[in-house]
Amino acid sequence: MTTQSFHPPERTLMGPGPSDVHPRILEALSRPTIGHLDPVFVEMMEEVKGLLQYAFRTENRLTLPVSAPGSAGMEMCFVNLVEPGDQVIVCKNGVFGNRMQENVERCGGTAILVEDEWGSPVDPAKVEEALKANPDAKVVAFVHAETSTGAQSDAATLCGLAREHGCLTIVDTVTSLGGTPVEVDAWGADAVYSGTQKCLSCTPGLSPVTFSERAVEAIGNRKTKVQSWFLDLNLVMGYWGNEGGAKRAYHHTAPINPLYALHEALVILREEGLENAWARHARMHEALKAGIEAMGLSFFVDEAHRLPQLNSVTIPEGVDEARVRSRLLEQYNLEIGAGLGPMAGKIWRIGLMGHSASATNILNCLGALDAVLSDEGAAIQSGRAVPAAMAKLGNG
Amino acid sequence: MTTQSFHPPERTLMGPGPSDVHPRILEALSRPTIGHLDPVFVEMMEEVKGLLQYAFRTENRLTLPVSAPGSAGMEMCFVNLVEPGDQVIVCKNGVFGNRMQENVERCGGTAILVEDEWGSPVDPAKVEEALKANPDAKVVAFVHAETSTGAQSDAATLCGLAREHGCLTIVDTVTSLGGTPVEVDAWGADAVYSGTQKCLSCTPGLSPVTFSERAVEAIGNRKTKVQSWFLDLNLVMGYWGNEGGAKRAYHHTAPINPLYALHEALVILREEGLENAWARHARMHEALKAGIEAMGLSFFVDEAHRLPQLNSVTIPEGVDEARVRSRLLEQYNLEIGAGLGPMAGKIWRIGLMGHSASATNILNCLGALDAVLSDEGAAIQSGRAVPAAMAKLGNG
Repeated sequence: MTTQSFHPPERTLMGPGPSDVHPRILEALSRPTIGHLDPVFVEMMEEVKGLLQYAFRTENRLTLPVSAPGSAGMEMCFVNLVEPGDQVIVCKNGVFGNRMQENVERCGGTAILVEDEWGSPVDPAKVEEALKANPDAKVVAFVHAETSTGAQSDAATLCGLAREHGCLTIVDTVTSLGGTPVEVDAWGADAVYSGTQKCLSCTPGLSPVTFSERAVEAIGNRKTKVQSWFLDLNLVMGYWGNEGGAKRAYHHTAPINPLYALHEALVILREEGLENAWARHARMHEALKAGIEAMGLSFFVDEAHRLPQLNSVTIPEGVDEARVRSRLLEQYNLEIGAGLGPMAGKIWRIGLMGHSASATNILNCLGALDAVLSDEGAAIQSGRAVPAAMAKLGNG
Repeated sequence: MTTQSFHPPERTLMGPGPSDVHPRILEALSRPTIGHLDPVFVEMMEEVKGLLQYAFRTENRLTLPVSAPGSAGMEMCFVNLVEPGDQVIVCKNGVFGNRMQENVERCGGTAILVEDEWGSPVDPAKVEEALKANPDAKVVAFVHAETSTGAQSDAATLCGLAREHGCLTIVDTVTSLGGTPVEVDAWGADAVYSGTQKCLSCTPGLSPVTFSERAVEAIGNRKTKVQSWFLDLNLVMGYWGNEGGAKRAYHHTAPINPLYALHEALVILREEGLENAWARHARMHEALKAGIEAMGLSFFVDEAHRLPQLNSVTIPEGVDEARVRSRLLEQYNLEIGAGLGPMAGKIWRIGLMGHSASATNILNCLGALDAVLSDEGAAIQSGRAVPAAMAKLGNG
């Protein structure tokens, strides 16, 4: 058995997440561990809440990071808002819509499905129809930014429709937070979760969440106990000091060092400014797009609904896509993502998230992709991608 | 709002966890983040599984770290093994037995309580009685090392009794793993969970778990879906490569850097040797005990059942215990733990866990406690604690 320390290679991370972690965040991770009830740590927890309100654009008091990855943040939203017998309209246009359906069913709820093609956004007309056909529905759940396809849905419209019909909303912003506008208060969204390892460029493992007063009220009016002890917001609120009063009730031991890292990631976001971060993601996407198209490759998602931070590129015919990714990893230390589920073998997912959304990464990625694809005999226009991207970056 | 980075003070952590994190582990945390599907990372995941088998003393194939704190590890055991209508014998002798009861009830099971005084171990005779009285019981759940009191129960006997009566066992080893003998295979335990921030001296946030073949079979025979998607072992097994075959199914994004840290913590444990780590915890406890008793203070738990790594010391009369802890923290950067629940105001909990179980920490702690208690006018024998501990350490 091994007794050797593990020393990872240095990769450039341009898949669907994790993204490249800023050196300041890695350094923050290694600061001395202190107790989770230490007054100095509790003060930092308050700062994290405030910084997350900034990132989510919300005044919601109940805004905090769950001590587990994004899929636990998703589950927290469902187990707290859905009770046995509840009807939930679930919009499915990718992997994470499927997962929402699983969550509803495991809570004893009934999922009413609104389906759209993978790669398309959620169609508000279909959602409206479902709302009209199901007047007892309690919640509408949808993914703002589908990580499996790179399509963005119109969260403002969908939240507005749900409200009109007296429904709460659960919104997945795992891939959008920090990359494209997430406007929790302006949308009127009720339960919103995200992840740390996408456009916040932090290490994976935590899930920022925020809940509106309407959601808090609904949780207070539950007829049954939340089925998960770990994710029960009534208990988590006490731990994060959201029940008023200075005293915090012990619930679990917070992951101290990962929270240092999230704090630092949010400080960096605040320094750059949220709008500037959105603009940077958009600008970098334009440069990548210029290069990808100059090479003769095309995008899977329509321009109108395309996420700048997650670029689904159609794999050219006759290419061994897994070998291309392996060569990029082995020869260039560059990670790009494969397609998930039905998208496997059809698309690559190139992430431009957070610290990875940089000119350096784009030129690196286009150059490496050009070299490997040419070498693999793909029908591309070699030599054009990098200059096309440079021209865009120069105009940025 | 703050835009300042957070710089924690340097504390000595002698509470009930987190314990002092080894500098090598802090350094490991800050290594470059790579993708969770990177072949190099997947290889490291395999090493972590092997190292955890070593720490748990088990051949169980299903041995892995849950991507969330110990309370999620606990919940993983219950949601996978308990179905609605199941009877579970829950042994309660502290805070974590209560939490087990909550878990059973939230799974739709019935908890049959076997209660013992806080500070006492679980009484096997009472458990046997409960097994005889409830022939349909499916699981016996108990805490090996109660973090709220510092009492250790006889896991081998309790697991043996459960087996005799055809029951599975769920065992909490959060505070024991790496500190006192945890013998999963020799006990014949079925579902065992732990934490990283106690005697492994890693940062909090992950929960090592291990499941016997009997447990895996029981999970395979479930009539209902596991209520938690995030903690469903059928899915987690696919992610951790436990379904045979090289391919891993995407489930969630593993917390990359915290897993580097756990790997390093386990490499350090392996270097020291598990038996040597147990012996060190025992030796350090003897030194602390000599000092505490020389000062005129006493232990809350009987010597026969006392955990060396978690020392519950009875608070001397007339002392403002919260002020003592604050002064230790502010003047000496030393954290010791308060009592939880009914133990609040009655005991302090002094941890000697992992990297914190050192001569330096003991002398530091006894010296600081002596100084603060004397200054607060407590009736102690000042000046005797440090020499008494030193004499023991010299003989060690």
